[in-house]
Amino acid sequence: PGKKVLIVYAHQEPKSFNGSLLKIAVEELTKQGCSVTVSDLYAMQFEPRATRNDIVGHLHNSEAFNYGVETWEAYKRGALSKDLLEEQKKVQEADLLIFQFPLFWFNLPAILKGWMDRVLVQGFAYDLSKVYDGGLLQGKLSLFSFTTGGGQEMYSKEGIGGDIRYVLWPMQHGIMHFCGVKVLEPHICYAPENVSEEKRKEMLAAWSQRLKTLWKEEPIDCSPEWYFK
Amino acid sequence: PGKKVLIVYAHQEPKSFNGSLLKIAVEELTKQGCSVTVSDLYAMQFEPRATRNDIVGHLHNSEAFNYGVETWEAYKRGALSKDLLEEQKKVQEADLLIFQFPLFWFNLPAILKGWMDRVLVQGFAYDLSKVYDGGLLQGKLSLFSFTTGGGQEMYSKEGIGGDIRYVLWPMQHGIMHFCGVKVLEPHICYAPENVSEEKRKEMLAAWSQRLKTLWKEEPIDCSPEWYFK
Repeated sequence: PGKKVLIVYAHQEPKSFNGSLLKIAVEELTKQGCSVTVSDLYAMQFEPRATRNDIVGHLHNSEAFNYGVETWEAYKRGALSKDLLEEQKKVQEADLLIFQFPLFWFNLPAILKGWMDRVLVQGFAYDLSKVYDGGLLQGKLSLFSFTTGGGQEMYSKEGIGGDIRYVLWPMQHGIMHFCGVKVLEPHICYAPENVSEEKRKEMLAAWSQRLKTLWKEEPIDCSPEWYFK
Repeated sequence: PGKKVLIVYAHQEPKSFNGSLLKIAVEELTKQGCSVTVSDLYAMQFEPRATRNDIVGHLHNSEAFNYGVETWEAYKRGALSKDLLEEQKKVQEADLLIFQFPLFWFNLPAILKGWMDRVLVQGFAYDLSKVYDGGLLQGKLSLFSFTTGGGQEMYSKEGIGGDIRYVLWPMQHGIMHFCGVKVLEPHICYAPENVSEEKRKEMLAAWSQRLKTLWKEEPIDCSPEWYFK
């Protein structure tokens, strides 16, 4: 109770299975007394492109645009665009970040990748030697909750898609761990479009159930062994 | 000579190192007699968001929007938006796809991920049982050419970033191989921003040199062993 949760949600359709998972998380966490904020990226028409528009006013070097350098400088002088400042404020306040999305091409949908690219700038999420366990977002937790198109058997070591953990490395280790955020076990709903209505209900119930004891969970050991053992 | 190449390029600044790599590829491949097309995503203000706007006219199911289903149906009846049809035509005609970009967060920049999400729809790039070696884009080659922020020592099995091949799995195997496209060795320029001018020149010369014998290269064996051995 009293914990703050930011859910970054990337699905176009509220009636989708992802929409149901979002609704369950908001309801269950609110019931626990958490304060829940949702960034509904498609509804916000969130901009995924990293451009000069993210910097208000003059550039540090207008001769050759370098997005990393310019957003770092803009962060330091409080000159990032309003939508980025708002998202950073939500991240700053959150104890837990939940990412809810359908896996697109073994990865985050572009709109959610754009959120990572634009919100987690140098100075805010990490800095020169402040990365991984020393990252600037230390003390926070994260959880990747997603649906897949393919079935679970596809995403195994022997399956053609390979172990599902292989696709988690860039997002969990390369983004969250890089910023110092601890990572809880991912929550994966395999192929909800291809299973029975009964099975879908079971999957929704399992998510609700997991959330009840979420705060007692230990983060994973975000090392290569977890991903590629 | 006579080969067609599509370069999908994702950098905001023509004077960047990525811009130089693009220029070298266009020049060298043109000199060989190849026909080279460039999709300069930032200059095109390419839309990365997968939305209802990608379908012209009525929806297959307007009750609940499902992007995968709707773009598949729209593809079949020729009702995808104009920007997608143009990109698909370029892909269809190409013998080789080169992706030129800076690695952002262990991954494709959002604008390039959006190109994958929106252009490679079902019916065009793959279909029900037409995936991996049976994918619909068989006969084509691909090459991921990118720059990193971190140095090469970081991206090793013992480095904190892990083997660079770990980040190639979702893009090479999960996207290109999935569509039946063969994958050439990636071309990686480590930390061009942090090396000497001389070293940068060497890196540009190495790219130019590689392109001279590119058509004699054998694709990699795109299996888990290549990535995680």
